[in-house]
Amino acid sequence: MGEFGLIDRIEGLAAAPNPDVALGIGDDAALLRVRPGEEVAVSTDALVEGVHFRFDQESPRTAGRRAAAAALSDLAAMGARPLGVVCALAAPGRLPLRVALGLCRGLLDTTRDGGTTLVGGNVTRASQTSVTLTALGAVARGKALRRAGARPGDRILVTGAFGRAALERARGRVRFVPTPRLRAGRALARGGLARAAIDVSDGLLADLEHLCRASGVGAQIDAAAVPLARGVDRGARAIGREPLALALCGGEDYELLFAARPGAPGPSALGRRLGVPVAEIGRVIARGLRVEGLPRGVVASPGKPRAGGWRHF
Amino acid sequence: MGEFGLIDRIEGLAAAPNPDVALGIGDDAALLRVRPGEEVAVSTDALVEGVHFRFDQESPRTAGRRAAAAALSDLAAMGARPLGVVCALAAPGRLPLRVALGLCRGLLDTTRDGGTTLVGGNVTRASQTSVTLTALGAVARGKALRRAGARPGDRILVTGAFGRAALERARGRVRFVPTPRLRAGRALARGGLARAAIDVSDGLLADLEHLCRASGVGAQIDAAAVPLARGVDRGARAIGREPLALALCGGEDYELLFAARPGAPGPSALGRRLGVPVAEIGRVIARGLRVEGLPRGVVASPGKPRAGGWRHF
Repeated sequence: MGEFGLIDRIEGLAAAPNPDVALGIGDDAALLRVRPGEEVAVSTDALVEGVHFRFDQESPRTAGRRAAAAALSDLAAMGARPLGVVCALAAPGRLPLRVALGLCRGLLDTTRDGGTTLVGGNVTRASQTSVTLTALGAVARGKALRRAGARPGDRILVTGAFGRAALERARGRVRFVPTPRLRAGRALARGGLARAAIDVSDGLLADLEHLCRASGVGAQIDAAAVPLARGVDRGARAIGREPLALALCGGEDYELLFAARPGAPGPSALGRRLGVPVAEIGRVIARGLRVEGLPRGVVASPGKPRAGGWRHF
Repeated sequence: MGEFGLIDRIEGLAAAPNPDVALGIGDDAALLRVRPGEEVAVSTDALVEGVHFRFDQESPRTAGRRAAAAALSDLAAMGARPLGVVCALAAPGRLPLRVALGLCRGLLDTTRDGGTTLVGGNVTRASQTSVTLTALGAVARGKALRRAGARPGDRILVTGAFGRAALERARGRVRFVPTPRLRAGRALARGGLARAAIDVSDGLLADLEHLCRASGVGAQIDAAAVPLARGVDRGARAIGREPLALALCGGEDYELLFAARPGAPGPSALGRRLGVPVAEIGRVIARGLRVEGLPRGVVASPGKPRAGGWRHF
């Protein structure tokens, strides 16, 4: 992999003008524009080959798309609009240019779909391929969605449907690229519609536990109310897996999970405002995490963090 | 290395309040405050064990300090004030907690010295230890220092002195932690004192070449005018190395290199305004890169990029 050749290619691919970018790739830092009264949201994630993606299970382009979706999803969970993404690519010298460019094209597919772009980065040699993305966004001061803020009695809601990423991983063939819920997150933040929110990266129950811990509350979930993504029910049974376990514990769905005050609009009205289906799956209680409506014999718990998974701090 | 234990420890270490941070470690993203009329500067860098640092040559704390200095130096080169740093730490499961914490303490030493802090991050498993830092800063709109803008006839100046990092690397024992020139960069930007600027990470000549390419100009350097850091002259000769070669090609000095219009204040006056010694080392010409005043037999050229070095894009 020629580092400079690769960088020139990336620069060419990422060159589309963007009103948020005052200065893009090529200087000591990129310069991004914010509007009056906005705060800057920033989050960083690393995807490591053999831990978070495997080239025998997915194409470089899919891995790149998923990496960018994960990064933008953190902005969605804050209700922020994306300003730009920077990428640190580490790779062995033997990594084919085609693979490195595939990863970058995937990143750029997803950032473009999210209305943003790659504004800078770094390429370095390493024994293992990895992509570390840092996403920057902007959100009106005081309007950001946080994990803390849920109160007993609040309803617990989710966007979209669950289990598809986990099913594909279980099958050893990953094609699904989640859509970061940027529009929905911004609508929640602008409208003050959520008291607390998080994106589902580790798994629905694991991330619900993070939200509950930050809010100092508990939750009761009706497992039967959790929407399964299309094909998950049949696909899971075909490989001897419980669909609800994939949906509750699988991870990488990148849907939004949020708490809304009791008098807030119902799921259908919310869905219209957010531009994505919304389902109510439970309610906030004082303490503990209870899952009801599970089929006999199925045990669902946030369980152990996924090996080497996303550990934010 | 217990991931959650490590994260709790990092959170405890980084908890000092900072007026730029509206929301720090612990949510889906950090929230940073900017002032009216400011743009956001962002830059990302990766340090990989065995490529950019070796634990048999330096302590984890020194490696962490150097990593943060490199990250903040990019903000200095833009004339930006730092807002916060996010860190993606990748490490094998066998990495001792003491080493991971040492790296983090080093990061925090340098960010504290720079008036900023760690606002978020990510810990993941990998076969090789690496630290990927993304630095965020703020700079008044239109005031940022860029690589482009130097014109023939401009004077070429540098802060500080050169060669110490390269000497220590050549000796196989690294203790030196460069000071990111944040105050000097801000003074240059605020005062409109530089037409173009870059920080010296790859090496004085290599980074001068980057500045010249971005500006579409050339440069003529008087090697004898390049300030050597204390101990470099004697130390280099003691191990059979040419001091000027270390100073011109060594890298990781993290001083600022900038072009000033012919009528701008001289080096002493500039040094007083910047709070650091400034030396004039050459001038901008139409094209080419000429180095004069080298001792007989010494050839200095930007040469090949350092293996696995910093490749910004």
